[in-house]
Amino acid sequence: MTDIPKDHPRYKSLMIRERLVEGFKKGVVVPQGLIAHGRGEAFDYLIGEETIEPVYKAYEASAALLLLSQNPIIAVNGNAAALAYEDIGRFAEKFNIPIEINLFHFSVERVRKIRELFESFNVKIFDVYDVELPTVSSKRRLVSREGIYSSDTVMVMIEDGDMPIGLRKIGKKVIAIDLNPLSRTARDSDITIVDNLVRVFPILTRYMDKLSRHGQDVIRRILEDYDNNEVLKEVLIYIVERLTSPGILD
Amino acid sequence: MTDIPKDHPRYKSLMIRERLVEGFKKGVVVPQGLIAHGRGEAFDYLIGEETIEPVYKAYEASAALLLLSQNPIIAVNGNAAALAYEDIGRFAEKFNIPIEINLFHFSVERVRKIRELFESFNVKIFDVYDVELPTVSSKRRLVSREGIYSSDTVMVMIEDGDMPIGLRKIGKKVIAIDLNPLSRTARDSDITIVDNLVRVFPILTRYMDKLSRHGQDVIRRILEDYDNNEVLKEVLIYIVERLTSPGILD
Repeated sequence: MTDIPKDHPRYKSLMIRERLVEGFKKGVVVPQGLIAHGRGEAFDYLIGEETIEPVYKAYEASAALLLLSQNPIIAVNGNAAALAYEDIGRFAEKFNIPIEINLFHFSVERVRKIRELFESFNVKIFDVYDVELPTVSSKRRLVSREGIYSSDTVMVMIEDGDMPIGLRKIGKKVIAIDLNPLSRTARDSDITIVDNLVRVFPILTRYMDKLSRHGQDVIRRILEDYDNNEVLKEVLIYIVERLTSPGILD
Repeated sequence: MTDIPKDHPRYKSLMIRERLVEGFKKGVVVPQGLIAHGRGEAFDYLIGEETIEPVYKAYEASAALLLLSQNPIIAVNGNAAALAYEDIGRFAEKFNIPIEINLFHFSVERVRKIRELFESFNVKIFDVYDVELPTVSSKRRLVSREGIYSSDTVMVMIEDGDMPIGLRKIGKKVIAIDLNPLSRTARDSDITIVDNLVRVFPILTRYMDKLSRHGQDVIRRILEDYDNNEVLKEVLIYIVERLTSPGILD
């Protein structure tokens, strides 16, 4: 592991980066995934590398949608696994949500390695691909009939592309975790959590615990009142205000 | 090489990304360099993946400074070489400016591989490190006495850190190429070109050709009138206006 000086202004971000580099060395992350992570880093930097206020509404709505779903599922790729397999595994186990491994740069070897990361958790993992999603051009179109294809809500994370539209075309609800509020993934999903994956699951767990004490009608109302486009706009305004705040370039 | 669909909205950016992946496979780029490239991609995306108006002033001032310098030098790292060694080599040859290989993740092997990329150009290359810069904590502090250490102006590119301050402490003028207008490199340099390295050298060559037809007094005035902080602010305002322009999230 690279030795990072503790006084580096971006120490935390550089430590997260090391997880990707480790995942890369293990064969879980592809080179293109490292670049994609860098893009995410830049957007995290723009929000101040912390969970920002408007996004809590997306967290609450995501918890509501997951609680109302009959067969939710979490789609995991190499970057997601490298960054947060422990958080994802714990969350999936606690709420009994299965995981499907879904890769842009698909290989049987990578699927196996990612699967291994989750084996210490009591979680159902789908990694047999026997059906294709419409309109998705990459290998991510390969999904499991018993898994994503049979689900009603899919949580996708750290992926830039046409997956949400493909999923919605076959009637799925989509929750995306994506740091870029302007990405196709962010804009095409039902709910977008604009936050760093390493911060997501502890917060989402809190909302799940909190909402599960309420009746279905309350949970349903939260979901009905949620406006993803509005939240994305608020995120953008937050970024813009931060960039123009006094002192940032003095 | 990965097959990228021509209709992908970010086709050009993905093709540039492939250069990094190629450089990585050749051992010119380190894994951390791929992540750093991703950060750059995100900032390029924020300016619209094109050279923006306020930056032309930085180009003009850079050309002026290079023309007025006695011993300018170009510091090159792995990412810079992977992205643009041909542009850099041609520019260095045309204006008789030497190159020094300067690496954060230093290895003799990488220095050799990067040197090889430039061997078809008639350019002086420094790759013997016999003196250390003050205050620079990474391996980039290792420079050549005959190269960077004896220069009066250093051009640095795609690096995030304390190098410009170290160079200025020993009296060098610093021109930085950096897509993040808020980075330490951007803010601590005399002139910052906020642009994608792949676009820089053709534009800079045009300014060099144009200014070299003027007298020293004209060139000197351009440099005196240049305000880097002002240009960085204009870049930031450009980004903010772009993010808030109608339609971007409708």
